[in-house]
Amino acid sequence: MLKATIDAEIFRESIDAMAALVTECRLHTEEDTLRTRAVDTANVAMVSLELKSGAFESYTATPGELGLDIAKMKNVLGMMGKGDTLTMDLPEEERKLEISFKGYRYSITLLDVNTIRKDPNPPTIELPGRVIISGNALNNAIKAAAVISDKIALGIDPDAMTFYMEAEGDTDHIKLALGEDELVSLNPVSARSLFSLDYLKDMGKVMAKAAEVEVHLGVDHPVRFAFDIADGNGRVEYLLAPRIEAD
Amino acid sequence: MLKATIDAEIFRESIDAMAALVTECRLHTEEDTLRTRAVDTANVAMVSLELKSGAFESYTATPGELGLDIAKMKNVLGMMGKGDTLTMDLPEEERKLEISFKGYRYSITLLDVNTIRKDPNPPTIELPGRVIISGNALNNAIKAAAVISDKIALGIDPDAMTFYMEAEGDTDHIKLALGEDELVSLNPVSARSLFSLDYLKDMGKVMAKAAEVEVHLGVDHPVRFAFDIADGNGRVEYLLAPRIEAD
Amino acid sequence: MLKATIDAEIFRESIDAMAALVTECRLHTEEDTLRTRAVDTANVAMVSLELKSGAFESYTATPGELGLDIAKMKNVLGMMGKGDTLTMDLPEEERKLEISFKGYRYSITLLDVNTIRKDPNPPTIELPGRVIISGNALNNAIKAAAVISDKIALGIDPDAMTFYMEAEGDTDHIKLALGEDELVSLNPVSARSLFSLDYLKDMGKVMAKAAEVEVHLGVDHPVRFAFDIADGNGRVEYLLAPRIEAD
Repeated sequence: MLKATIDAEIFRESIDAMAALVTECRLHTEEDTLRTRAVDTANVAMVSLELKSGAFESYTATPGELGLDIAKMKNVLGMMGKGDTLTMDLPEEERKLEISFKGYRYSITLLDVNTIRKDPNPPTIELPGRVIISGNALNNAIKAAAVISDKIALGIDPDAMTFYMEAEGDTDHIKLALGEDELVSLNPVSARSLFSLDYLKDMGKVMAKAAEVEVHLGVDHPVRFAFDIADGNGRVEYLLAPRIEAD
Repeated sequence: MLKATIDAEIFRESIDAMAALVTECRLHTEEDTLRTRAVDTANVAMVSLELKSGAFESYTATPGELGLDIAKMKNVLGMMGKGDTLTMDLPEEERKLEISFKGYRYSITLLDVNTIRKDPNPPTIELPGRVIISGNALNNAIKAAAVISDKIALGIDPDAMTFYMEAEGDTDHIKLALGEDELVSLNPVSARSLFSLDYLKDMGKVMAKAAEVEVHLGVDHPVRFAFDIADGNGRVEYLLAPRIEAD
Repeated sequence: MLKATIDAEIFRESIDAMAALVTECRLHTEEDTLRTRAVDTANVAMVSLELKSGAFESYTATPGELGLDIAKMKNVLGMMGKGDTLTMDLPEEERKLEISFKGYRYSITLLDVNTIRKDPNPPTIELPGRVIISGNALNNAIKAAAVISDKIALGIDPDAMTFYMEAEGDTDHIKLALGEDELVSLNPVSARSLFSLDYLKDMGKVMAKAAEVEVHLGVDHPVRFAFDIADGNGRVEYLLAPRIEAD
C-alpha cells in the first residue's frame, strides 16, 4: 500500500536519476522511505535511490514491492508542469497505481516484479580517494572529454593536490586538473581509473543539477558518485565499473 | 479580384487553422468576407474558416474563387516576423496572387480550382451537449490522452456536471473530469463519443491559442469545435466524425 | 611558433567564417597577423580571413604555416562559454597545438600542411557595382529566396537606385528591391549575376552578425562580400562564382 503526494519536480528528478541507467525497477515501499536499486542490462553500472518521507508533502506506506516502468513514468511526468503536485495511490493488493494531478487521473498497470531483475547486492569495495565537486563542473568535464574520446580517466594526484580527468583521442588529448580552490574538498590519496563515457554522459546530465557530488575513487577500481536530491530528503548513488586501460 | 492588407499574425492563424486538415482549398472572395470550407482527404474531418473585412486593415473584393496552395502559403509566412503587414493583390482575370511585405514582392501561381475538391456541404446534425472551455485546457487534455492511446472519448456527465475525456491504453487508463469551475459554461446533456487523436492533436495545436472554444457533442456523434480568431472578426469551425467504440 | 590569447567569442566567429566553406585550411602565422585563405572543394567559392594582433589579448608569433582541422576546432569551441578566454600555444618545431581554457588543456595534432590544398591566388576581377547593407538584411533576403528556389540573382538597378535580389521557382517568383533608405550606401552601376543559394545560405548565417557587409557586383561576374570581425581587428572576404543564367 502506498499513498503519497509529492512535488512533480522532485519526482521527475528521482525518475530521471533512475532513467539514466534502467527502464524498469523494483520500487520498495517502506514505512518512511521509498527505495530502489538496479543494475543496467550490461552489469556495468548500478544506481540506488532513496526518498525519505520528508521529500513528500504526505506519505503513508506499508512494506511492499512495486514493478515500475520508468519509461512510462517519464511520459506521465511529461504532462506535468513546474509547480504541479502529484498524488500516487496504490491500495493494498492492487496492481494498478493511480497517479492524479490537476484533475487528471492516470491509472497505470504495474509490472510483475518477478519479470524484473532481482535487486543487486551493493559490492563492498574500498575506495580511498574522495573528492567533492559541483555537479555542474563534473558534467562539463565529462562533456569535454566526450568531444574527443569514448573513455575518460578520473584520478587524484596527491602531490599536486588535484582531481583530474584525462581523455585520449586518436590524435588529440585533453586534460583538466582541478585544485582545491575549484573543489569543495579533496582527500589526497593516489587514485586513477578508466571509465566508459557512454555511461558517464547519462549520469552527468543528472548530476549537473546537484550542488555537490561526492566522487569516490581507487586505482583501477569502480567510481562511486553520491549526491542529495529533494533538499537532502533523498539520495542517489551511482556505481560504475572501470574499463581496462589498454597499453 | 482581391486586394487586401492584413497583419501577418492574423493571416498565419487563419492559414494554420486550415493547414491542420488540408494542403489546398478553394478560397471564396466575397464583398466583405473571405471564406473557405474543406474536408480532409479521408473524409473524416471538415474545417470552415471565415474572415470578415474587419479582420483586415483594408479589404476590397469582388465575388470569386481562388485555388490556394496552403503548404506554399505557410512557407511564405515563414519569412515574415511578428508585426509585419502583408498585402495580397489579385487583379481581375489574373491567375497570379501577389503578396508583398517589407520590400518583398512574392508572386504565387494559384491552383486551378477545378483540380481541388468541391466545397463540402455542412451536414445538418443535432449536437445537444455544449461546453465552453479554454483552448489551452482542451489542448492539454488532448496531449495527455495521446501519451497512452490513439483515441479519446469526449463526453458530458450531466449528473456530475462535468465535461470529461477518457483514454484507454494497452494497460493504462487516463481520465480527466472538468467541473463548472474549470469550464466557461456547460450544458448538462448526456453525451459521449470516441475520436481519433491523430486529428485532434493537429486541431488542438490551433485551438490552444483560442481563449474560448465551443465544444458540441452528442452520443456516438461527431464533435464540432468553434472558436473566434482575429479579435472576433473571424471564426473557425472543425467537425470531426466519431470512431466506433470497440466492445 | 605561436602563443596567443583571445576571447572565445571572437575566435568562434573566425572559425565559423571559415567553416561555412571548408573543413581544413592552412593558417599562416605572421609577426602581427593570423591569416588564411581557402577555396571550397568544388572551386566555386573562396574565403579569406585576417586577424590582426589587436584582435587578441596577447599575440606573439614567428612566420609559419599550420594545418588546421576546422571541424575539430568547432568541437573544441563547443566546450567554451561566452566570456571564456582561450590560449593557443604552438612551440617552435612542434606539431601539437595546445589550447587551454578554464583549467582544461586540450592538445590537438595539426594536419600535415602538404595534405591541404595550396592557398588559392585571389583572382583580379573588376566588380564596379558596390552596395553596403546590414548583414541581417542580406541574410533575410537569402533565406526568403531559398524558400522557392536554389538560385538567386543579385543586382543593382542604377535608374531606380536599388539593390535587388530576385528568385524564380517552378511557378512562383520573389523580388526584393532595397532603396537608398534601406542601404548604407549604393554605387549606381548596372550589375546582375546569378548565384547558387547553397553557398549563399552558409555565408549568410555568418554575415548576419556583421553590422555592415560590402557587396561587390558585376554583370555575370562573381560577387565579393567583405565585412569586419573582432571590432575591426579582423576581416573576412567571400568570393562566389556566378552561375550561368538559363534562357
